[in-house]
Amino acid sequence: MRDVSIIGIGQTDVGERWERSLRDLAVDAVVAAMKDSHAERVDALYVGNMLSGELTAQEHLGTLIADWSGLGGAEAYKVEAADASGAAAVRLAYLGVASGIHDFVIACGVEKTTDADAETTNAAWSYGTDAEYEGNQGITMPSMAGLLMRRYMHEFSVAHEDLAPFAVIAHANGANNPHAMFRSPISAAVYAKAGMVADPVGMFDAAPLCDGAAAVLLCPTEVANRFASRPVRIRASAAASDRLAIHSRNDPLFLRAAHLSAERAYMQAGVAPHELDLFELHDAFSILAALSLEACGFAGRGKAAELAKQGVFDLQGKTPICTMGGLKARGHPIAASGVYQIVEVVQQLRGEAGANQIEAHLGMAQSLGGTGATAITHILEA
Amino acid sequence: MRDVSIIGIGQTDVGERWERSLRDLAVDAVVAAMKDSHAERVDALYVGNMLSGELTAQEHLGTLIADWSGLGGAEAYKVEAADASGAAAVRLAYLGVASGIHDFVIACGVEKTTDADAETTNAAWSYGTDAEYEGNQGITMPSMAGLLMRRYMHEFSVAHEDLAPFAVIAHANGANNPHAMFRSPISAAVYAKAGMVADPVGMFDAAPLCDGAAAVLLCPTEVANRFASRPVRIRASAAASDRLAIHSRNDPLFLRAAHLSAERAYMQAGVAPHELDLFELHDAFSILAALSLEACGFAGRGKAAELAKQGVFDLQGKTPICTMGGLKARGHPIAASGVYQIVEVVQQLRGEAGANQIEAHLGMAQSLGGTGATAITHILEA
Repeated sequence: MRDVSIIGIGQTDVGERWERSLRDLAVDAVVAAMKDSHAERVDALYVGNMLSGELTAQEHLGTLIADWSGLGGAEAYKVEAADASGAAAVRLAYLGVASGIHDFVIACGVEKTTDADAETTNAAWSYGTDAEYEGNQGITMPSMAGLLMRRYMHEFSVAHEDLAPFAVIAHANGANNPHAMFRSPISAAVYAKAGMVADPVGMFDAAPLCDGAAAVLLCPTEVANRFASRPVRIRASAAASDRLAIHSRNDPLFLRAAHLSAERAYMQAGVAPHELDLFELHDAFSILAALSLEACGFAGRGKAAELAKQGVFDLQGKTPICTMGGLKARGHPIAASGVYQIVEVVQQLRGEAGANQIEAHLGMAQSLGGTGATAITHILEA
Repeated sequence: MRDVSIIGIGQTDVGERWERSLRDLAVDAVVAAMKDSHAERVDALYVGNMLSGELTAQEHLGTLIADWSGLGGAEAYKVEAADASGAAAVRLAYLGVASGIHDFVIACGVEKTTDADAETTNAAWSYGTDAEYEGNQGITMPSMAGLLMRRYMHEFSVAHEDLAPFAVIAHANGANNPHAMFRSPISAAVYAKAGMVADPVGMFDAAPLCDGAAAVLLCPTEVANRFASRPVRIRASAAASDRLAIHSRNDPLFLRAAHLSAERAYMQAGVAPHELDLFELHDAFSILAALSLEACGFAGRGKAAELAKQGVFDLQGKTPICTMGGLKARGHPIAASGVYQIVEVVQQLRGEAGANQIEAHLGMAQSLGGTGATAITHILEA
């Protein structure tokens, strides 16, 4: 198995990108990733995307983006794992290079949600749940998060305002990310006053669906220095799944896939959670941020919010999270988020994180699909 | 890079499977593939599917099928490349095992088209074209095939009835396949009398959309004998893409991706076309069968139909095609077809093809996406 490194990154601004189409966004990110390296060819392109068919009447997306990015002849597919689709594309790109079959592979994550109205988009997002037992019954992703959050608050005696730090951290960090959708810091008071989306999920507990694309270019570590001045090594790549429907899980408040994929990643990299300098986690909802931290060994059960309040996850804390705004403030262009996370870890490891730069040599990114039934974890090293 | 073999196959009956849901079909195939081998665990599952979101409101399909197949914790994604989605899943499963990251990987292809009405399904199938320049203008897959076929007939002075052998061969072979949707032989006269679907594409020039699922279980060749009595080695796995929209291609009658991926496969396997004992090709339309044979070196430009008439591609000919009925008679459950092709080659190489058994040691399967913008080719060896 070959060691794999990231030699190029690309990202578009996140938001309501009315002026750019699905293909425009993806091509922008892919071309930026190519320009960011000195690679002269691309052997394969894996495009992480969840809803191009439902919202834009476009499947066969991998080949479309390869075509419009000028990658003539390259292998190209679309990969889907709900919100974790982009991370799945990175994972498959890693397999392609690790196997020795490809030398240069691009993973791109893209979502264009504003081509459909909000109701259609929100309904389609729920296709990441079990259609027959959850989605078709009318449940949405925010309402699923509401069920989890209510149970969490009950089980661990956590109040709604206790979860404020996750949104506060994300918005504080997003303020300095030029690509972020939301660039205004918020206070705990503002968090508390926000309207409800799906009680107890308030507006600041839910990341915004939006448009965006990000891409990374991978190659074998042994030649990475020839194609990039600061290659970033993939120390671990791991994935796991759980029961899809929440009612099928023994303990809905324990994200088993997140735990399993993180454990697999720690084993591969030979590191423990406390050795990581940052953790880009999947804060599609603040409850998922808390559950991720607990599943991955950064907090005891029911203790994530308390640690967050103590500043452990701040930019200057022990394990900074969401250092460029997370899904909450950078925005959550569904399938693209998993690749944005990797791009942001690379920015930190290269020293290109601007005002949010931390001292970092080892960083982790974890992307979740739906309510956590898919989890994909990468550990990167400068 | 590790050598990879197929140790288990599974397939459902193809047709209008009103009594089985999307998940039922996929689980049936996955469980059958597991039962067909002695593997005791599955590390990853890649599900090839094109339209689960559009037709069944279900994404996150990889994890759903892993969950319902009892693969607790396994890595799982959906892969999409239009009609070639199933073959793409096989290709990624190959990468997973070749890389050394996984030992046992299942690739499943599934499509459930009868959950939506025919108009919706046909419109969604066109999402495999370029939405902005082709699909959204109202063009469908049959009408795209009609444009190609008309041009082919003009360019090479081929009459409609000259293409009859492709449908005749497929239906003759499908008659002996217990899983096939259509099990009645047809004559050239019946072919000629059939109504038009999209002139000059007649009813027997177009494979039927339907329901079905197939699966293969892969492991390293070095241990394959421990888990199967007749493992089949993957001698080559290759993929390529072309411009997506037909109007972007220099020569619409030359399937460049099919040519490229076949050439890559021949190079990997160190074989020439004439050394292959059978070729499961992508006859979603008879024109695509002809163009595939020409792109892959089995016939000169414009000569495929003539060779077919001479019996070259019959079951007892030099290079049998569609030995279990092809897409035309076995049926074309969109994303599943690419895996059915692999399963059928394995049946031939194992000597399990029943009345259609040929003497075969080396077989090829090639799946095309849309009008051929994606091509994935596998060469298998007994």
